[in-house]
Amino acid sequence: MKKNPEDRFLRDLLRGIPAGRDLVVGPGDDCAVVRVPGASEVLLLKTDCIVEDVHFLRSHDPARVGWKALARTISDVAAMGGRPGQALITLFTPSDLPAGYWKKFYSGLNRAATRFEVGIAGGEISRSPGGMAVSIALTGHVAARHLVLRSGGKPGHRLFVTGRLGGSIAGHHLDFVPRVAEARWLVENFRPSAMMDLSDGLGSDLPRLASASKCGFAIDPGQLPIRPGCTRDQALTDGEDYELLFACAPSKERVLRRNWVVMFPDTPLTMIGELNETFRSPRNWPGGWDHFG
Amino acid sequence: MKKNPEDRFLRDLLRGIPAGRDLVVGPGDDCAVVRVPGASEVLLLKTDCIVEDVHFLRSHDPARVGWKALARTISDVAAMGGRPGQALITLFTPSDLPAGYWKKFYSGLNRAATRFEVGIAGGEISRSPGGMAVSIALTGHVAARHLVLRSGGKPGHRLFVTGRLGGSIAGHHLDFVPRVAEARWLVENFRPSAMMDLSDGLGSDLPRLASASKCGFAIDPGQLPIRPGCTRDQALTDGEDYELLFACAPSKERVLRRNWVVMFPDTPLTMIGELNETFRSPRNWPGGWDHFG
Repeated sequence: MKKNPEDRFLRDLLRGIPAGRDLVVGPGDDCAVVRVPGASEVLLLKTDCIVEDVHFLRSHDPARVGWKALARTISDVAAMGGRPGQALITLFTPSDLPAGYWKKFYSGLNRAATRFEVGIAGGEISRSPGGMAVSIALTGHVAARHLVLRSGGKPGHRLFVTGRLGGSIAGHHLDFVPRVAEARWLVENFRPSAMMDLSDGLGSDLPRLASASKCGFAIDPGQLPIRPGCTRDQALTDGEDYELLFACAPSKERVLRRNWVVMFPDTPLTMIGELNETFRSPRNWPGGWDHFG
Repeated sequence: MKKNPEDRFLRDLLRGIPAGRDLVVGPGDDCAVVRVPGASEVLLLKTDCIVEDVHFLRSHDPARVGWKALARTISDVAAMGGRPGQALITLFTPSDLPAGYWKKFYSGLNRAATRFEVGIAGGEISRSPGGMAVSIALTGHVAARHLVLRSGGKPGHRLFVTGRLGGSIAGHHLDFVPRVAEARWLVENFRPSAMMDLSDGLGSDLPRLASASKCGFAIDPGQLPIRPGCTRDQALTDGEDYELLFACAPSKERVLRRNWVVMFPDTPLTMIGELNETFRSPRNWPGGWDHFG
């Protein structure tokens, strides 16, 4: 089965690159984690970009594109259990862009910043000879004892997803609400052993979490929380769900489920399967990954 | 006289955007400055991008482009008196890019990271329908008492420039060495009242420092440290010098000059003029700026 080619390309590029003294977690998780001397919390760092005709179209409402641009990075900070901090925004702007585009874009970005208490610390604008692009760097903070990585899962730990999967292209990919509150509640009360956000689809992302945790996994396909109107395949491969995927010790399952419905009655929490010792994806898993491949 | 249109555009975009509780200095200085609860140092944040055919050409040596990409952000951290920390690298890659380009690019970036002790905390690669672009976010650290902004200059303070100005396009713009050591020595021993790095040329950048300090300025054109073979106009407007421009109380001038030549014998330090109370650029200043314009 294939590995994700982008994952491998980045890993190859970064081989031999100095990591720096204070880097706790480097490339490969949702955020980098940096130790700050004297501080009680670790610093989370995330960069993310969206490119015209790859992640969005010029015909999309610029305000929704602005919301999405920032919300993607907030989702990554949430996936480590963190609170978002300060954002740096870089705009690549083609000469034929209608006047007012970026003001509308910022109105949406501003809404996301206000809602999730993100400060806009700075920005840059560059001419783009091609299409539009936006690059955002976001800091975050989390107490070291609440930090959750992708790599802490253990065989037998239950796998959960929030919300519903698939069909994001119909609109969810522009309007999703990052799971900051849910993730904070999880890390403070149930300490998942591994967590990430679903950006490329469960098919690609679950093997990443399992691989980082040195586990395999088994899923009950009948249990997938499929968005109404979508197929199982869409739920696995569409991507841009921005839901949480996490692993949790089986002993916590009962109380977790019971308290979740009290805290987040409008958001489904679904146990979809568990990690195991096979260290590979099940046969015919759509996203690939095989340790021995 | 004209204001810098990019400065104004960014300021308009960011009007009304939430700054966040911990933001000490927001957009408009070389870096943003963020308070970190419990930490003895403040956090510096900088984002910067380079775009093919705007900041570099495909025919340039990719390793030198990689050096430049990271060194630009290091220069901004130095301009606040800081030490660089962790970098996040985003690559926008067109489909026709020769295989191996990014490996060569990273070899140069890696050299800069090693020399200035920058950790590479993460990165991202996105397809680009246009040309290449690179966006880098860099953290930095500086003790609050050593932090120097653009805005602390006072009338009568002497203006100094390191190195020589102009003609960067002949090669300096790809090979410059960020003035980290010089800036650290300055803030620890002479505490400049205002400082920035010269990226757009003294003509544009000096008015920014003066404006932030609510001063005007007077320059002795005969004193400009012009790179051999360049005109005075080139020294003012070529840009990409990546030298330090700083203001310092006149009482410190004599000892500063004497100790500088001992510490940095190969790097000229030139007193080019001083800040004054006019709150505008001198007549015919090439970079513009007039508070009343």
